[in-house]
Amino acid sequence: MAQLTAETSPLKPNETEIDALATRIAAGERRALARAITLAESTRSDHRARTLALFDALRKADALGDEAVRIGLSGAPGVGKSTFIEAFGGYLTGLGKRVAVLAVDPSSSLTGGSILGDKTRMELLSRDPNAFIRPSPSGATLGGVARRSREAITLCGAAGFDVVLVETVGVGQSETMVADMTDVFLLLLAPGGGDDLQGVKRGVMELADMVVVNKADGDLKPAAERTRADYAGALRLLRRRPGDPENIPAAMSISALRAEGVEEVWQRVCVLDDWRRETGWRDRRRREQAVRAFEAEVERGALDALRHHPKVAAEWTALELAVANGTITPEGAAAHILALFLGHSEPATPSDPDKG
Amino acid sequence: MAQLTAETSPLKPNETEIDALATRIAAGERRALARAITLAESTRSDHRARTLALFDALRKADALGDEAVRIGLSGAPGVGKSTFIEAFGGYLTGLGKRVAVLAVDPSSSLTGGSILGDKTRMELLSRDPNAFIRPSPSGATLGGVARRSREAITLCGAAGFDVVLVETVGVGQSETMVADMTDVFLLLLAPGGGDDLQGVKRGVMELADMVVVNKADGDLKPAAERTRADYAGALRLLRRRPGDPENIPAAMSISALRAEGVEEVWQRVCVLDDWRRETGWRDRRRREQAVRAFEAEVERGALDALRHHPKVAAEWTALELAVANGTITPEGAAAHILALFLGHSEPATPSDPDKG
Repeated sequence: MAQLTAETSPLKPNETEIDALATRIAAGERRALARAITLAESTRSDHRARTLALFDALRKADALGDEAVRIGLSGAPGVGKSTFIEAFGGYLTGLGKRVAVLAVDPSSSLTGGSILGDKTRMELLSRDPNAFIRPSPSGATLGGVARRSREAITLCGAAGFDVVLVETVGVGQSETMVADMTDVFLLLLAPGGGDDLQGVKRGVMELADMVVVNKADGDLKPAAERTRADYAGALRLLRRRPGDPENIPAAMSISALRAEGVEEVWQRVCVLDDWRRETGWRDRRRREQAVRAFEAEVERGALDALRHHPKVAAEWTALELAVANGTITPEGAAAHILALFLGHSEPATPSDPDKG
Repeated sequence: MAQLTAETSPLKPNETEIDALATRIAAGERRALARAITLAESTRSDHRARTLALFDALRKADALGDEAVRIGLSGAPGVGKSTFIEAFGGYLTGLGKRVAVLAVDPSSSLTGGSILGDKTRMELLSRDPNAFIRPSPSGATLGGVARRSREAITLCGAAGFDVVLVETVGVGQSETMVADMTDVFLLLLAPGGGDDLQGVKRGVMELADMVVVNKADGDLKPAAERTRADYAGALRLLRRRPGDPENIPAAMSISALRAEGVEEVWQRVCVLDDWRRETGWRDRRRREQAVRAFEAEVERGALDALRHHPKVAAEWTALELAVANGTITPEGAAAHILALFLGHSEPATPSDPDKG
């Protein structure tokens, strides 16, 4: 449970305090932003009530702008993700921009120390007054982490950040999740060494707007360029998204350590982001992402209620095992569970829109 | 609604008739199989009851074997899918095998005539006594089609078919669905002509165990080989699934029209299928597919009940629009809907396993 210490003085469900917090967020105060994200991460009902009230207050104050560009970034351990974020973030603040960096990784998939490690490895950026770095919200399930992350992104935008970088180590379905809450998606790779594990996880290459091959310096430079060319070829085989410009998806090689190529990454992101805003693609996509998030949250809540229904909880595990063993069909088992939950006599088939 | 005509004599919820149908299916009778699939496609409660009883009878008769190899096949219009299926199916029946071909496409995504067209285009195979061709079940939603298709696959296996080919034109999420109900997935392409539309839809390449480039004959032969080489290169960049043999995923070029390369496709499918059975991968995967199908059916039913709840139905569309317009956050809207469905006072957050 999120710790709201005495120092952060527990908020009463009092309009004035929520309004005050909203005002401070809209004024760009980092501490207010941090407190709001902590509040939003809590699942306690009273905290959820305050979070919803906070979003309401921000909307009324016209602070829920959508100007911030949301960049998703996936990078497996070893590709230099922290070095890249430090270089990229530092470049952006150098341009006068305010940059938020949110980590998104379900805790069940993290190896020890990576949450704290991220922040300490980006030493310069973590001390930059125009940067805001937040470790991943805790949470065992992807759905829970997704909800918290979406709300954090919205809050960062309300606090006036120009760029919100949402980064993940890319375990499980986290890339898909991050792509579903951002405008542009970058995939960071190291030069291929012939090692099988260097291959891109299935399903991720197709998410990328840009494949960025890091460590293009010294001895690895030729390998980095070969890897870049390989991915450029592979990306050409993928059907372009309707509405994307000609040069997307793209593959490039950089050296984050030397801050070489970082400017080019930003320029390409800007060109793509501008294109997508001008063509209306970004607004359409954000609308779709919001609606999908709504449906996902409804599903999550409905399923959660179902799984915790006393009659269902008593039988779920045994039924799942029976399905795995083939002693009951998936559909038969589902009909049984639904009958328990909805209180019909078996077999229960809820009204099916597919009258076949 | 499925039409059960006088000729197919409506089945009474009578054990003996269901047992009789089960016996005939297990004996390999095509007409019994066709009737059972039609019955399973119906969503009427009494038909569902009979279908579940039928599966039960088949299980008791030990007829739900898992010997049949399930091959998924995606091919966009124009790549020669029907020609391939005709050639491939004909080759297999020539080897003495019994082949079932099931089409899987949500009706909302089909262009006119393609259902009937499929069957008439595979003229030889549709007259082959050892082949069984079934058009796609009707259904507007992917979930509804998925359920019917899974049950049809199981019934084909019970009827003793050696190979069940599950094919789709690949619209929407249908490839993912087909991959989730088969053991081996083939992606059929035509030689690349530089046309953007020839690109592989995002998310599909990573599903494929084999990319098969068709029309490698005559003038197109060089282009087919180049396309094959391109995809072989792209597939090498993907991380191999844990447990897959070294040569998978693979890319090959064939000419379905000349029946060239069809034997090689089958041999590679066999090698992969044998490998996956021997390593236990196939059984594990089928168990996972079954459990996922169970969870998906439960979700579908729960959501369906929720969407049809009178209080929810009255507000859903307006809330969805408000979410799209940004006047309420996805999470806020979801909390509202769940409160209506579960009967709590707002804001309702069901017990969250992610105590944050």
